[in-house]
Amino acid sequence: MKAVVFEGNGKIGLKERPKPVLKEEQDVLVRVTCASICTSDLHIKHGAVPRAVPGTILGHEFVGVVEETGPGVRKFKPGQRVAVNVETFCGECFFCRRGYVNNCSFPQGGWALGCRIDGGQAEYVRVPFGDNGLTAIPDSVSDESALFAGDLLSTGYWAASIGEIHPADTVAVIGAGPTGLCSMMCARLYGPANIIAVDVDDFRLKLALEQGLADAAVNPLREDPAEAAAALTRGRGADTVIEAAGGENTFEMSWQMARPNGVVCVVAMYEKPQILPLPDMYGKNLIFKTGGVDGNRCQEIMDLIAGGRLDARCLITHRTDLDHIMEAYELFEDKRENVIKYAVRIG
Amino acid sequence: MKAVVFEGNGKIGLKERPKPVLKEEQDVLVRVTCASICTSDLHIKHGAVPRAVPGTILGHEFVGVVEETGPGVRKFKPGQRVAVNVETFCGECFFCRRGYVNNCSFPQGGWALGCRIDGGQAEYVRVPFGDNGLTAIPDSVSDESALFAGDLLSTGYWAASIGEIHPADTVAVIGAGPTGLCSMMCARLYGPANIIAVDVDDFRLKLALEQGLADAAVNPLREDPAEAAAALTRGRGADTVIEAAGGENTFEMSWQMARPNGVVCVVAMYEKPQILPLPDMYGKNLIFKTGGVDGNRCQEIMDLIAGGRLDARCLITHRTDLDHIMEAYELFEDKRENVIKYAVRIG
Amino acid sequence: MKAVVFEGNGKIGLKERPKPVLKEEQDVLVRVTCASICTSDLHIKHGAVPRAVPGTILGHEFVGVVEETGPGVRKFKPGQRVAVNVETFCGECFFCRRGYVNNCSFPQGGWALGCRIDGGQAEYVRVPFGDNGLTAIPDSVSDESALFAGDLLSTGYWAASIGEIHPADTVAVIGAGPTGLCSMMCARLYGPANIIAVDVDDFRLKLALEQGLADAAVNPLREDPAEAAAALTRGRGADTVIEAAGGENTFEMSWQMARPNGVVCVVAMYEKPQILPLPDMYGKNLIFKTGGVDGNRCQEIMDLIAGGRLDARCLITHRTDLDHIMEAYELFEDKRENVIKYAVRIG
Amino acid sequence: MKAVVFEGNGKIGLKERPKPVLKEEQDVLVRVTCASICTSDLHIKHGAVPRAVPGTILGHEFVGVVEETGPGVRKFKPGQRVAVNVETFCGECFFCRRGYVNNCSFPQGGWALGCRIDGGQAEYVRVPFGDNGLTAIPDSVSDESALFAGDLLSTGYWAASIGEIHPADTVAVIGAGPTGLCSMMCARLYGPANIIAVDVDDFRLKLALEQGLADAAVNPLREDPAEAAAALTRGRGADTVIEAAGGENTFEMSWQMARPNGVVCVVAMYEKPQILPLPDMYGKNLIFKTGGVDGNRCQEIMDLIAGGRLDARCLITHRTDLDHIMEAYELFEDKRENVIKYAVRIG
Repeated sequence: MKAVVFEGNGKIGLKERPKPVLKEEQDVLVRVTCASICTSDLHIKHGAVPRAVPGTILGHEFVGVVEETGPGVRKFKPGQRVAVNVETFCGECFFCRRGYVNNCSFPQGGWALGCRIDGGQAEYVRVPFGDNGLTAIPDSVSDESALFAGDLLSTGYWAASIGEIHPADTVAVIGAGPTGLCSMMCARLYGPANIIAVDVDDFRLKLALEQGLADAAVNPLREDPAEAAAALTRGRGADTVIEAAGGENTFEMSWQMARPNGVVCVVAMYEKPQILPLPDMYGKNLIFKTGGVDGNRCQEIMDLIAGGRLDARCLITHRTDLDHIMEAYELFEDKRENVIKYAVRIG
Repeated sequence: MKAVVFEGNGKIGLKERPKPVLKEEQDVLVRVTCASICTSDLHIKHGAVPRAVPGTILGHEFVGVVEETGPGVRKFKPGQRVAVNVETFCGECFFCRRGYVNNCSFPQGGWALGCRIDGGQAEYVRVPFGDNGLTAIPDSVSDESALFAGDLLSTGYWAASIGEIHPADTVAVIGAGPTGLCSMMCARLYGPANIIAVDVDDFRLKLALEQGLADAAVNPLREDPAEAAAALTRGRGADTVIEAAGGENTFEMSWQMARPNGVVCVVAMYEKPQILPLPDMYGKNLIFKTGGVDGNRCQEIMDLIAGGRLDARCLITHRTDLDHIMEAYELFEDKRENVIKYAVRIG
Repeated sequence: MKAVVFEGNGKIGLKERPKPVLKEEQDVLVRVTCASICTSDLHIKHGAVPRAVPGTILGHEFVGVVEETGPGVRKFKPGQRVAVNVETFCGECFFCRRGYVNNCSFPQGGWALGCRIDGGQAEYVRVPFGDNGLTAIPDSVSDESALFAGDLLSTGYWAASIGEIHPADTVAVIGAGPTGLCSMMCARLYGPANIIAVDVDDFRLKLALEQGLADAAVNPLREDPAEAAAALTRGRGADTVIEAAGGENTFEMSWQMARPNGVVCVVAMYEKPQILPLPDMYGKNLIFKTGGVDGNRCQEIMDLIAGGRLDARCLITHRTDLDHIMEAYELFEDKRENVIKYAVRIG
Repeated sequence: MKAVVFEGNGKIGLKERPKPVLKEEQDVLVRVTCASICTSDLHIKHGAVPRAVPGTILGHEFVGVVEETGPGVRKFKPGQRVAVNVETFCGECFFCRRGYVNNCSFPQGGWALGCRIDGGQAEYVRVPFGDNGLTAIPDSVSDESALFAGDLLSTGYWAASIGEIHPADTVAVIGAGPTGLCSMMCARLYGPANIIAVDVDDFRLKLALEQGLADAAVNPLREDPAEAAAALTRGRGADTVIEAAGGENTFEMSWQMARPNGVVCVVAMYEKPQILPLPDMYGKNLIFKTGGVDGNRCQEIMDLIAGGRLDARCLITHRTDLDHIMEAYELFEDKRENVIKYAVRIG
């Protein structure tokens, strides 16, 4: 079969690979029908993801059809359309039982697909712990509607869920790229009075406003984000800030936008350590939540997609197929044509 | 001034009364501009509210303009447009500090206005603890948009807030009258995948669907509500049920619609004790939350109205003025013309 | 092997039965070393537990040693000492993932052992879903210290956990029998300022005080419980009430002892429906939590036993062995000799 | 009257000052009977507290007797024994209503006493917003038992309350000085299985163990704290870490001791910015809570003291009176004689 392989040394390529087979009792073999390209795939290519193993097939955000199930699989049968969770998890360890599946104690628990084990930019993929890692797609939901359930929407859903957002709050989201836009979408589920999108890219800010994902847009090149947040909140600042940019000064921006006792969710992947100026922020009593998605709530996300409450199709600015995926990678890496996300048809 | 007075013995009337004056340091005198008529006013008329004192001016849901403030008032000044909370509370006792203002320890804490002390179906009203009991109305918000902030929307907001609603949940609301409709509106702020409206009145169900307040409608005269809830939830039942009807069999209906470990909020006023069949529900592990609104979150409600996230104007099916309020009371009591709520212009 | 069998028609007896064998991949075979007798066993005998199947071996509270494990068991090995959860659960369904294991969707999920499938008043027992249903006993913890982990302590732990108890609260526990005493012990973990034990049996009240489980004791035959609760709380009432008696008037007593906005946990098994006098309690805004233990937190309980923070050995007033268990049942049923709990040595 | 005055430029002295008088309606005049010396007083002396105003009387932790009350005071009368909150707050602003009194919007809200307005190392003190800032001391509670209610115990209580500690957790407290010891005491209220004290001072570790405040003690000079935490938790790390030391490397130590998804409460006052190495901790999903006490829960603390559940008298290693307080300051600053805290009798 064809598959995008991480070759190491900054190289990826479309290669011929053998079709995977079931190994463990709880494995499910999935025939992939649609996949995306993710910024994390570029991080892997560039060697910035230490856990990534050369030779691995890329792809951790995709949907498909169940082809075969191991004898320990209870919930799925061949023929079912499914979305795949970005994370692999046993469901039984200390961390899984608390929902912290990103830290599953299982040797290949957490983010493994398309990184440490073969992923879904391929015709077929083996999904371990299938009962935990798959979500059935209802007939009323298209592949493209379900495409981001397992990774991007999971990340936005998780970011919003840890943000302690209450009705009438003001939420600021720094970064209006794929993660930031999904975070806005999911923050909306908590009933805030205002969502503020922050980005230096006016095209993305416009998209956030037009799609109703944000109520206000701030471009830090023109406006001070902390002042903008204060102006919208009778002076107090944002109740919750979701930092989804990971830029040069966006960490500092995030806590400056927050009101005293506010919550700052740092969900961007950072390449450098940051300064935490505790003396300057003493008495502001901020809460920082750091880390990466706990991707175990795909059923809820799917229910919201089916109910019309979450719709991330607006992220798909470009489409291609597996044969042309390498050109897509190039355009995506160069950020040409205001690309947000690719949907890659497979099979 | 003119005022609607509860005369006792099942009688109310439009009477001439002296304009009220400030008594306590934290009092605010409000000139009323718009009031509503509430089902609770009828309960008072009929003697079903033991705390109601004959001779009291009715009206606990209204907006107006600050006329005069006592020396202990810090937040308000004459000329400000304000919405008035249904409840009076000191803000400092054990209960107030936890937000349980309905049980404020102050002698006339809790529901007092239009019941134990003179209310707002009048040209002027004295509001005790004005800093707690008033909310400024922004210029962008009309009187009618703000009218229900202090009582009906507070009740719906409180009902939803105690319902432990999470994104993707299914919420059932029994009763699509004013309280039920506001409960749906506020439940929506918590991101449920589905809201089910339950009522025997098809006009009200239609309104709930058309206004986007509910996603599904169930008329118990035609359909079993518990089965309908199960059908929408892969068999498990509603995660949260808000009982806002107080009908003959609606308490039983409420817990039968709930899934195991679900939350049932009994916010209707009941005139009779109910049966709690503990042996039948053993192991279902239900949670029942009973009582009346803790009305101290009007600022949040106002922020949501101003942000376009809450809009209860669809409840206003009828309008009149203070001179014609007695005719309005009659139509309202007879439930003619599919009346939901009256807006009564004053002054 | 020898086993206590529920024969139906109000009869139980010590019988010879074949040693059980593994059936499912996740089964564990346990050699029982110590079991208890529970009031629920008497309920089964008397036909008051509809789900109980005649012919079943009794016993749902016991400890033992792993004898054999199915191929799907990951956490346990032969030779390990283990405590057994009262409930059987799959760990993966909607309810299990939220911790509501009492309502596990698996056909024999929830309370099955010693009721619908053979239990532990026997030399050996088959435990389904062993990875979920067993907890390793550390070397430092004796069989008797661990005996109540799976049922009584789980119940007390669950009752306290749903009680929303905060530091400095006042907690009332109605019933100072096994469940009530364990509830007090576990309520203590939440740092209340006061625990009030309520019982008509002075021996049990004395035990609660002497063991430091309660700070105050109230015998309703001599004192009004609601007044006693008010006196200890500057008049407000108990913040949380755990109703663990299930007596004639204890449901009414429970909500009368609670302060406004308090939580009443009804964890006793009731044989009759109760009256919920909503008009009388209107405005008191009480929360009722009903049902039976979600028994999935045995690891936490075991950690607390090992750390010296939970010690239920004071409940063991009587000891016997499997050969003499029928005499023990008689004494236990007649409530002679101030019996609280039996520890039954096996093998 | 005599009072310890911050003179600026690193100097403090015992001076003669006029007895204070009531200024605002909600003021209370308190005759001080017992005060402590706090490390923060030294920070003020050294110019490390920017908000501190030269000329101000020091002292923010003390108890006394109500001498006189303003007309707006509702809860207190002359003659009552009272503990004083470290913070001044209005109780009505956005922050106060959420309990964030450290950020009270009132001009002198937050930490003002003994810093920006005259404090309690004096014979008399004026306490603004007396109804919020005072707590009655029951007859059964001595001055020394109540002495730390307003500041140190409030800080420990707050630190524990934000730590999201659940029964059976493992809590690590870095620093076994006054704040750390009070944090351990208050963490115990949440039922952890283990509390680990971390300090380089063996005398303080010994005190923590002997007083039952900690279950394990770690001296980083001899042992790796992260390894010690892992060893006590089957490898996972501490569920909650309270950083109460503010030392050279204690911030790094704090997050290294925490398990994935754990909570790190940074309650120490830092003099330098810290490094937050986001790339190194990516995927560990840590939560950081920063800041200073929200001191509004003194009533709860007093109830726990009266109920025998909190007892901080073990901190009082030294006693003196106001006439000799300057010698006490010297000993305290030099950390001689293993001093933890001074109780200073006044009047």
